[in-house]
Amino acid sequence: MTTVHRIHNFSAGPGVLPLPVLEEIQRDLIALPRVGMSILEISHRSKAFESILARADADIRSLAGIPSNYRVLFLQGGPSLQFSMVPMNFLASSATADYIDSGSWAEKAIKEAKKVGTVNVAASTKIEHYTRIPRPAELKLTPGAAYVHMTSNNTIEGTEYKQLPDVGNVPLVSDTSSNMFSRPIDVSRHALVYAGAQKNMGPAGVTVVIIRDDMVARSAGRKSSLPTMLCYAVHAEHNSLYNTPPTFAIYVVGLVMRWLIEQGGLAAMGQLNARKAARLYAEIDRSGFYRGTTRKEDRSLMNLTFRLPNEELEEAFIRDSEAAGLDGLKGHRSVGGMRASLYNAFPEEGVEALVAFMKEFERRHG
Amino acid sequence: MTTVHRIHNFSAGPGVLPLPVLEEIQRDLIALPRVGMSILEISHRSKAFESILARADADIRSLAGIPSNYRVLFLQGGPSLQFSMVPMNFLASSATADYIDSGSWAEKAIKEAKKVGTVNVAASTKIEHYTRIPRPAELKLTPGAAYVHMTSNNTIEGTEYKQLPDVGNVPLVSDTSSNMFSRPIDVSRHALVYAGAQKNMGPAGVTVVIIRDDMVARSAGRKSSLPTMLCYAVHAEHNSLYNTPPTFAIYVVGLVMRWLIEQGGLAAMGQLNARKAARLYAEIDRSGFYRGTTRKEDRSLMNLTFRLPNEELEEAFIRDSEAAGLDGLKGHRSVGGMRASLYNAFPEEGVEALVAFMKEFERRHG
Repeated sequence: MTTVHRIHNFSAGPGVLPLPVLEEIQRDLIALPRVGMSILEISHRSKAFESILARADADIRSLAGIPSNYRVLFLQGGPSLQFSMVPMNFLASSATADYIDSGSWAEKAIKEAKKVGTVNVAASTKIEHYTRIPRPAELKLTPGAAYVHMTSNNTIEGTEYKQLPDVGNVPLVSDTSSNMFSRPIDVSRHALVYAGAQKNMGPAGVTVVIIRDDMVARSAGRKSSLPTMLCYAVHAEHNSLYNTPPTFAIYVVGLVMRWLIEQGGLAAMGQLNARKAARLYAEIDRSGFYRGTTRKEDRSLMNLTFRLPNEELEEAFIRDSEAAGLDGLKGHRSVGGMRASLYNAFPEEGVEALVAFMKEFERRHG
Repeated sequence: MTTVHRIHNFSAGPGVLPLPVLEEIQRDLIALPRVGMSILEISHRSKAFESILARADADIRSLAGIPSNYRVLFLQGGPSLQFSMVPMNFLASSATADYIDSGSWAEKAIKEAKKVGTVNVAASTKIEHYTRIPRPAELKLTPGAAYVHMTSNNTIEGTEYKQLPDVGNVPLVSDTSSNMFSRPIDVSRHALVYAGAQKNMGPAGVTVVIIRDDMVARSAGRKSSLPTMLCYAVHAEHNSLYNTPPTFAIYVVGLVMRWLIEQGGLAAMGQLNARKAARLYAEIDRSGFYRGTTRKEDRSLMNLTFRLPNEELEEAFIRDSEAAGLDGLKGHRSVGGMRASLYNAFPEEGVEALVAFMKEFERRHG
């Protein structure tokens, strides 16, 4: 195995993966041990894959402390398909769903839900360019709502919930795509949690859904009218094997889960991620040359957004940082500026490298 | 790189991949050349991925001779989600769609279409346990149907169309999941072709859709009411990048396309696959100990089904063949018997190994 050159990957997703996981994938790529076929070739009905799936499920459950009345599903289509599946399964024509509009992805979820039924936007910070999370007191919740939908981390704008909103007995549905498993999660306060794997959990191509049994039962009532592939109950009944699942992506998620457990689990990851983010925010705030774009108490520990004094400098920053082996720092095309994504597998030395680059860039241009 | 032991993989899918493709994936797994990141980590908006996507598209087009008025899309959800997307996009409430019921997967497609609108089963061989393809004269087509849906190869039962049915000017939609790119295809006779990649084209997790421009336009008319992720026009407009696509699976499909081109393209693959299938069918027909399960003129070159004199012998055959390194020969649980899947990447020496095993098994048990 020759040494290969790897750069620092600040991409918002697909994002950086743990090197030991990549090395294990590489080692076993031609043939899994004792199987004689590649993970890319084995049947999803084989004993080898069943054991991979069972272990990924068990490791996710132990890692996140998932109660026994929840199911873990591995689906396709990403969060964007969840935006439709959630209302199609749970928003009856007589009911209203509450949505908290905290960012561009929340807005997309609302757009899809409105195609299905009645939506109440319980709060929105759109007019403030989503630079903060709506405060608890701002939420105008519907009594007896079908569910409340929230976005736990706003990947594009760089804000993150520090605590869950209180929604009483209404089922809480959370899109946790960009911070799932970056810190401890209290699954029991949710009715359904979903996340694309490609930030903190694995490669693109699989979506992890954690769903409470009563929500599975609600979904089952819609089985005959929903497209079968969009019915949570079908996937729960078939243990994510209704049709051919994205076998390789599930395998990689399983390896990442094992790596997270080896790192000390979600509490340890939460501490590490807080430390990485604090280091970078301190640099952003140090001199005034850089400035954060969001309200400080709502700052995301995953996607750290900041601006420079002008767009010319921002272009130079992106160009020079790429040349320095710091990739993916350009902010989302809809908001501009910089964004450094510091997911689970992003190493502390990468943060140090960026901080050093920022100091040097400021020295040259400040 | 140590030598690894690989067995012969007769699985119906996910199925065997070309060893040179697996070796290239392995070599570049930690970091793509000149990129410094793994294919599993790069952003779908990066130049590196854009170039992978563009090359896969170009190679598919050249390989299959796809006319310029067709788009190639890379979607998620497998053929099972296509079963819903096709009627949701193209079956208006005032119209009828014709379905040819040639096997278990066709039946599933019909079930999903019936949730959406009016379905005419133009012909069915279900009563004959799908042991043959409906003959052209049997088709009762609806004048002015929204489309005709067919299944070009019936993976479970082991039958395959040798020529396309004549459906006049009605759009022909074909599920080609288990024989796409195993032989030349006349795309211009179809309005839409779809296939899960995990048989002849790559790993599980991506579905290739080839769609004619007028069908994209029909789909666009439904954009505001359909779930965005289920609208073909959205994916066409965004060049399969509306949301994060299954980047790794697309990369592998691209490598397999290049391998197919290197093998001489679809004409050469068609000859090779015909030779492999003829070799195995000759053994099945040789003595009467084995017997094929389908009408000879409809026999699939991809999934070759056969029975033994009794179920005890079938169990022994499966057990002994596995022990001999011949994996995945058990027929689908719904029909029993044996099934040998001889996809593009399945090597001729594997067929020879199976034929030798069959002769020896018959010698011992015949």
